[in-house]
Amino acid sequence: MQIARVIGTVVATVKNEALDGRKLLIVQTLDADLQEKGKPMIALDSVGAGVGELVFWCRGKEASFPFKREEIPTDCTIVGIIDSDAHVNNKG
Amino acid sequence: MQIARVIGTVVATVKNEALDGRKLLIVQTLDADLQEKGKPMIALDSVGAGVGELVFWCRGKEASFPFKREEIPTDCTIVGIIDSDAHVNNKG
Amino acid sequence: MQIARVIGTVVATVKNEALDGRKLLIVQTLDADLQEKGKPMIALDSVGAGVGELVFWCRGKEASFPFKREEIPTDCTIVGIIDSDAHVNNKG
Amino acid sequence: MQIARVIGTVVATVKNEALDGRKLLIVQTLDADLQEKGKPMIALDSVGAGVGELVFWCRGKEASFPFKREEIPTDCTIVGIIDSDAHVNNKG
Amino acid sequence: MQIARVIGTVVATVKNEALDGRKLLIVQTLDADLQEKGKPMIALDSVGAGVGELVFWCRGKEASFPFKREEIPTDCTIVGIIDSDAHVNNKG
Repeated sequence: MQIARVIGTVVATVKNEALDGRKLLIVQTLDADLQEKGKPMIALDSVGAGVGELVFWCRGKEASFPFKREEIPTDCTIVGIIDSDAHVNNKG
Repeated sequence: MQIARVIGTVVATVKNEALDGRKLLIVQTLDADLQEKGKPMIALDSVGAGVGELVFWCRGKEASFPFKREEIPTDCTIVGIIDSDAHVNNKG
Repeated sequence: MQIARVIGTVVATVKNEALDGRKLLIVQTLDADLQEKGKPMIALDSVGAGVGELVFWCRGKEASFPFKREEIPTDCTIVGIIDSDAHVNNKG
Repeated sequence: MQIARVIGTVVATVKNEALDGRKLLIVQTLDADLQEKGKPMIALDSVGAGVGELVFWCRGKEASFPFKREEIPTDCTIVGIIDSDAHVNNKG
Repeated sequence: MQIARVIGTVVATVKNEALDGRKLLIVQTLDADLQEKGKPMIALDSVGAGVGELVFWCRGKEASFPFKREEIPTDCTIVGIIDSDAHVNNKG
C-alpha cells in the first residue's frame, strides 16, 4: 500500500451510480521522508479519514474489497490511518 | 482514481467488437496544480463526459465494472465529472 | 488504453502453450504529439494490426477478455486500430 | 516480484477490519545494486520478515492469495525472504 | 508483455509455500535497443529460461495463468523465450 496524506476533497455531481454517497478525497503520495512525491489521486474512503491525516491506500481490484458484495469502480481506496507522523518508523 | 482533462476524441473503425458503439476519449492526467503530466490515455466514457471537462478515471479490471455483465477490454474508464476546477479543493 | 505504434515483430519458438499460434507484435507507446515515449512492449493482437499502424492497447487481466473462455497470459493486447494520425484529435 | 528491504514498521489504530492483527511493514524497493530506488510502500507480511531483511513482494490482486479464503485489501505482500545479499546473483 | 534479459538467480529459503519448488530468476527489463532500463524484478519461470536469455514476461493476475488450478502469488512470470537478439525486429 502507498503512504499518502489527504490533501483535499472533490465535488463531482455527475459520477458512476456505484459511487453515489461515497466520500471522495484527494490523496498525495509521500516518499520515505514524508515529502510529497508524484501525482495526487482521488481515493474512496473506507475508514473515516479526513484532510491532513496520514493514511495508506490500496490500489487495483483489491481496492474494492472493503465494499463487500458491490462492484465499486475504484482503483484507490484508503484502508488505514497512520496514528501520527512519528508512527512511521522507517529509520530503524 | 486519476484526475484528468478530456483533451480529444479518436476514430477507430477497426476495434474489438466489445468496444463497438462505445465513446472513446483522449484524457490527459493532471498534477496537483491541474497541469498536464504524463502520457495521454484513451478512455471509455461511462458518465457522458465531453472535451474540456475535468474528470477522474479508474484503471484496472475494476474499470470494466460500470459495464455490467459484459467483459469490456478497458483499463481506463471515466467514472466521474468534477464540477469545476474550483471544486478540486486540494489546498486545504 | 495506451496509444502506441506497432514497430516490429518478435520470434519466440519457446513460449507458454496458451500463446501458440498468437501473433506477437512490438508496440511503442506514444505521447500526445505521437512521439515515442517509454519502453516498448510485446503485445498480443486481437484486431489484425500490422507494423507501422497506430493502435491502442489494453493492459491487465482485462487484456485477456478478447480471447473468450481462455486464460491467456497476456497483460498487453491490441484492441483497436486508429484510422490515421489525423484521427487523434487531441488539440480540441 | 520486486526486491526490497524492510526498513520499518507502522502503527495504524484505525484500519480496515480485514487488516486487523496483520503485521504492516515498510519496504523500500531496490535496484540491481541493492540500492534504494523509488517510493517506500506499506506491505503485509506472509512469511515472518523483520526490519533489515532483504525480501521480495508481490503486488496486485495476487498479493491477496497467501491469505486464503479471505478478501484482504492488500496490493503489496511480502512472499519471500532472500537468504542474504550475496544470494542475489545478478552479475552472472 | 515486457522484454527482459535473465540476469541471475536468487536463493530464498523462507517463502510462501505456493512458491516452493518454483524457479526464481532475476530479470532486467530492456528498452528498444535492448539496453537495460528500470529496476530488476524477480520472476517465476514457466518455460525453462536460463541466465543470459532474452525473454518476455507477463505481469498482474494473468501472470498466474500458466500455473493452472493454483493460486500462485506471482505478478511476474516468464512466458516466452525470444529466439535471439536478432529476432527482435523493431526497426521495421
